[in-house]
Amino acid sequence: MEYSNLIGLTGELVIDRIDSEALRGNALGDPSERPVIVYLPPGYDADASRRYPVLYVLHGYTGSAISLVSARPWERNVLQWIDQLIVEKRMPPAILAIVDGFTRLGGSQYVDSVHNGNYATYVVRDVVGHIDRSYRTNASEGGRAVLGKSSGGFGAMHLVLDHPGVFAAFASHSGDSYFRYAHPNLFVEAQRTLEKYDFSIADFVDAFEKKHKRPQAEYSTMELLGYTAAYSPRSAARFDLDLPFDQRTGELRDDVFARWLAFDPVERVPGKKDELARLRLRYLDCGRRDEYGLDIGARLVAERIRELGLEVRHEEFDDDHRNVGYRYEISLPALAGVLDTK
Amino acid sequence: MEYSNLIGLTGELVIDRIDSEALRGNALGDPSERPVIVYLPPGYDADASRRYPVLYVLHGYTGSAISLVSARPWERNVLQWIDQLIVEKRMPPAILAIVDGFTRLGGSQYVDSVHNGNYATYVVRDVVGHIDRSYRTNASEGGRAVLGKSSGGFGAMHLVLDHPGVFAAFASHSGDSYFRYAHPNLFVEAQRTLEKYDFSIADFVDAFEKKHKRPQAEYSTMELLGYTAAYSPRSAARFDLDLPFDQRTGELRDDVFARWLAFDPVERVPGKKDELARLRLRYLDCGRRDEYGLDIGARLVAERIRELGLEVRHEEFDDDHRNVGYRYEISLPALAGVLDTK
Amino acid sequence: MEYSNLIGLTGELVIDRIDSEALRGNALGDPSERPVIVYLPPGYDADASRRYPVLYVLHGYTGSAISLVSARPWERNVLQWIDQLIVEKRMPPAILAIVDGFTRLGGSQYVDSVHNGNYATYVVRDVVGHIDRSYRTNASEGGRAVLGKSSGGFGAMHLVLDHPGVFAAFASHSGDSYFRYAHPNLFVEAQRTLEKYDFSIADFVDAFEKKHKRPQAEYSTMELLGYTAAYSPRSAARFDLDLPFDQRTGELRDDVFARWLAFDPVERVPGKKDELARLRLRYLDCGRRDEYGLDIGARLVAERIRELGLEVRHEEFDDDHRNVGYRYEISLPALAGVLDTK
Amino acid sequence: MEYSNLIGLTGELVIDRIDSEALRGNALGDPSERPVIVYLPPGYDADASRRYPVLYVLHGYTGSAISLVSARPWERNVLQWIDQLIVEKRMPPAILAIVDGFTRLGGSQYVDSVHNGNYATYVVRDVVGHIDRSYRTNASEGGRAVLGKSSGGFGAMHLVLDHPGVFAAFASHSGDSYFRYAHPNLFVEAQRTLEKYDFSIADFVDAFEKKHKRPQAEYSTMELLGYTAAYSPRSAARFDLDLPFDQRTGELRDDVFARWLAFDPVERVPGKKDELARLRLRYLDCGRRDEYGLDIGARLVAERIRELGLEVRHEEFDDDHRNVGYRYEISLPALAGVLDTK
Repeated sequence: MEYSNLIGLTGELVIDRIDSEALRGNALGDPSERPVIVYLPPGYDADASRRYPVLYVLHGYTGSAISLVSARPWERNVLQWIDQLIVEKRMPPAILAIVDGFTRLGGSQYVDSVHNGNYATYVVRDVVGHIDRSYRTNASEGGRAVLGKSSGGFGAMHLVLDHPGVFAAFASHSGDSYFRYAHPNLFVEAQRTLEKYDFSIADFVDAFEKKHKRPQAEYSTMELLGYTAAYSPRSAARFDLDLPFDQRTGELRDDVFARWLAFDPVERVPGKKDELARLRLRYLDCGRRDEYGLDIGARLVAERIRELGLEVRHEEFDDDHRNVGYRYEISLPALAGVLDTK
Repeated sequence: MEYSNLIGLTGELVIDRIDSEALRGNALGDPSERPVIVYLPPGYDADASRRYPVLYVLHGYTGSAISLVSARPWERNVLQWIDQLIVEKRMPPAILAIVDGFTRLGGSQYVDSVHNGNYATYVVRDVVGHIDRSYRTNASEGGRAVLGKSSGGFGAMHLVLDHPGVFAAFASHSGDSYFRYAHPNLFVEAQRTLEKYDFSIADFVDAFEKKHKRPQAEYSTMELLGYTAAYSPRSAARFDLDLPFDQRTGELRDDVFARWLAFDPVERVPGKKDELARLRLRYLDCGRRDEYGLDIGARLVAERIRELGLEVRHEEFDDDHRNVGYRYEISLPALAGVLDTK
Repeated sequence: MEYSNLIGLTGELVIDRIDSEALRGNALGDPSERPVIVYLPPGYDADASRRYPVLYVLHGYTGSAISLVSARPWERNVLQWIDQLIVEKRMPPAILAIVDGFTRLGGSQYVDSVHNGNYATYVVRDVVGHIDRSYRTNASEGGRAVLGKSSGGFGAMHLVLDHPGVFAAFASHSGDSYFRYAHPNLFVEAQRTLEKYDFSIADFVDAFEKKHKRPQAEYSTMELLGYTAAYSPRSAARFDLDLPFDQRTGELRDDVFARWLAFDPVERVPGKKDELARLRLRYLDCGRRDEYGLDIGARLVAERIRELGLEVRHEEFDDDHRNVGYRYEISLPALAGVLDTK
Repeated sequence: MEYSNLIGLTGELVIDRIDSEALRGNALGDPSERPVIVYLPPGYDADASRRYPVLYVLHGYTGSAISLVSARPWERNVLQWIDQLIVEKRMPPAILAIVDGFTRLGGSQYVDSVHNGNYATYVVRDVVGHIDRSYRTNASEGGRAVLGKSSGGFGAMHLVLDHPGVFAAFASHSGDSYFRYAHPNLFVEAQRTLEKYDFSIADFVDAFEKKHKRPQAEYSTMELLGYTAAYSPRSAARFDLDLPFDQRTGELRDDVFARWLAFDPVERVPGKKDELARLRLRYLDCGRRDEYGLDIGARLVAERIRELGLEVRHEEFDDDHRNVGYRYEISLPALAGVLDTK
């Protein structure tokens, strides 16, 4: 019996492993070999000539490819959603590929980083390349979409902005944006925590990994380090990072934070008209009680896109940041609906 | 690539499906066909003559066999623990079997219930029978142990007390016990919630299942119903249950609660000397900040066992009820250490 | 300028001090001299022949007479409520007397205790006697009512049950009742906390008093001790108390808890028909989200009263246990409305 | 009996009322007549020739003069602290004056506002003038200090920076500072809340005032409005305020936030060397777990003061923002110790 049966899928689940050039030799010592979890829709094996569009799913911070396949009672994960939607003919059959973007610091944000490795390149070149080589895909821009939640939503936006021509659509669920609201809280917690470790990131990470359990402030500190390693690394030496605050006083460092803001979708959209114009669907949603204020971010991204004269599908709902996987019911058909189904 | 690789196991993972006579025709309409997830230690295939002891793992309330195989960053699940412990030779090789005890009401408590089905029988007869038939086990009492956390710890105690001769040892992590402290809070929440549904359990369950998200009080109500269906069902008709409180006023119904207490390990141990005496290991632990006061329960069960003149391994630690999987590091070797390994 | 002006009262505020025989020589060393805060309605001085009914207000656990006169923005305290209601002619003019029932353990529950002192006697004899001697009251049963919130609501019920003939009406807001649900949680917390102090109540109390701040579990422990000193004192020696649980294991001690239950209004009402029948108003309310489940208690007290063939005014509202002072808007006119006003 | 006895003071308490020119005709309709609560130390009446220094105390947001005199079990308020410290001769006798800075929006921040009224002027001219006229004070800069907690700490800093020559020392406990960290969270909550009221501040305030209870988000919204009315009012018309965010999208308005930052002590200190140099004591403290990150603010203010070549007493402690009144034990003697005691 297969894992796919265990979680009740009609379609098939394949776990591939790819060795990514883009991740090799990274400062964190994270593996360059990564799993890709591939969902093949019912009927994939029956008709060997049919080709399918592919939805690439990016997990959130502290998540991994594995975390997206785990199941919870009374909820559906992204695999269970797509399977049900296809079975019920509420969307056309599609392949779904779950990308792994975990790092020792909890997540890569799917950006190229001199410190972490080039996670954007890894996705758009190595993962997409592997999928197109291995499966019967519609192997062009019109056959691919990218989506994710939280840091995965950020990643989706980042990849369509930085790598035009790879994906024809994106969906960002509660995606990181408007860092000016979302992130400064982390700086306060992290400054306090790192001071306890005499400002040694290595000592903190080491202690963190050895603990059975960690207080919330330590998770926040890890999160801060994860973002720092993505947005403002100093070099390719392990833990050589430019913190966005003065480590002794906690004061915001505007020069470093500016490097963060250069990744903020709210800041980037105005300069990316061409990249956005070629997309067939721009989808954002966020709960109106999001603990990180990402609803404000989504509003601003949507507004900036509209200011470019482009359409955007922007939805809000009455919920917070946690467990909003039920939004896949909306995004998956919307994305698949605009892709080439051949 | 296999799921076992995805979560980094050296050993092998097999997902079997058994059709349990004991669960057939249950009132909830839950399937009688259930998965059993089997971990085979490194070397299992190499020596076709070697037999292994088996550790049966029971998940907690709202859990399922699947939930025990999901992985979380910076933590290990029970599979990752046993694999590492065996690889590092900190315990002898053993098979581990993950039992599925989920029901539509969130959990079976692993007891025989006229309403839910006979989950105790299902485990000790159908699951154990299947494993012994399918794998090279030490197929006798001396080759089996049972363990679990929370409702799984309760289940482990319940099975050794009710089915002597099946298991030679048990481990209960934060197991349900001393219901007088652990459960009355649920009654208050459930009375309030069910009143909103005009006391129709069917309507409540139906609404619960349809929601994207549920407030904590509704989870508590579901939990109350799960325990009621296990401890005080009225008949084999769906949702025909004796609530442990007067539904209109919320007053404790001592007659019904007495039926619950008849399942409470604290109450049962004094009458089960023979069943306990034959065990090679009696292991209990609980965090001293357990939200349900189960540390008190563990103390009382341990004390009652000692009052029978028997030894018990009882440990406390500084933590609450959540994410205490790191305790497997202690229980798994302790259990395997007393089983027949030859 | 007076404190009464500071909080915007039209009526007058007098702070008396009485020396209570009933509280003398108590084990806790609490003063027998106590303040009584007396509100005199507008017009009290103008007509020297007019007499007034008196509403006695009992504060909750950890409260004191002082705490009931403090003011909060956007809320009204009991003095501000009665003053406004009288000024707006929504109730007849009445005197209101705030009783002080604080002890070193946080509260007396207004019961006679060999350990704490005789707080019931203190209220019905010493405080009522003082008020009748000092002010132009309707100095008989028909001119007095008693009310309170939480432990104050319990106290109001306790006094009408134990001292018939003193008050003609009571109002209990979220009053302590149905101890079987309300209290066992405290036992768990207290057992854990006291163990840290090697089960020395004196050491715990001492450490508690010296701290700048205390965690919630220590407040719960103090609360447990307060109730124990009221319901199950062992002797008149300081801190010589019978805890309702075994101090080493935490197990419920049914013999001691039975002494607690002997104070539970739910248990007492059935045997107090005469005492209840003579009342002109029996008023209970409770928020339906009360954290201690006191809404269940209020339902049961109300039901028990009705089972005696007596009427009861029982209201529920959508709120929790905190800051429900706005319920005075209902109880104060209801109580004053049944008292002799002539 | 007096309120001062009720809370156990040896000294005397006087409640004065002053009519402040500075507050007249404010947009909120708040009274220009305000209470000042004056503590006179033991011995004040005995020696009619002795003069005393005065400590002016400013309450926090949502507080009022009244709130500082209320008493809590197992804690001391500022009156109880100064009284005990003087009685125990741990500080020289001093007068303490509690200023009222409450507004309909929850607090004035003690700044002159075209909308709220001129609260800074009210304190330094009207309140100080009244105290010097009415009591035997050391009626000059050397005889006065100002202190407060939270918004009161901010107020203390604001007044010494803007009104040099009035006070010789200040103490800020967990005072508002470094708005870049402390305030943006409020913007998110407020945007969401105000949207529900169709962006009518009047409708929101009206509904807020009428409710029995308000969710935390509404308190945060009120707080945002209070700060806005202090830092960025648009005109003297009621509720004519410049919100620091775009009301429709929630985006930060840098132009308005710049007006807020002009009040931030971190920003102001560098330009106020003379004002700070003349002080005899500059005291700041903050809990290292402050929920608003004000510990970072205090660090920065202290650092900026040191960068001017001036000394500062800066302390941190292991606590959060709530109930830190025990810090008066340190600040009151420190302040009184540098004032003229004549």
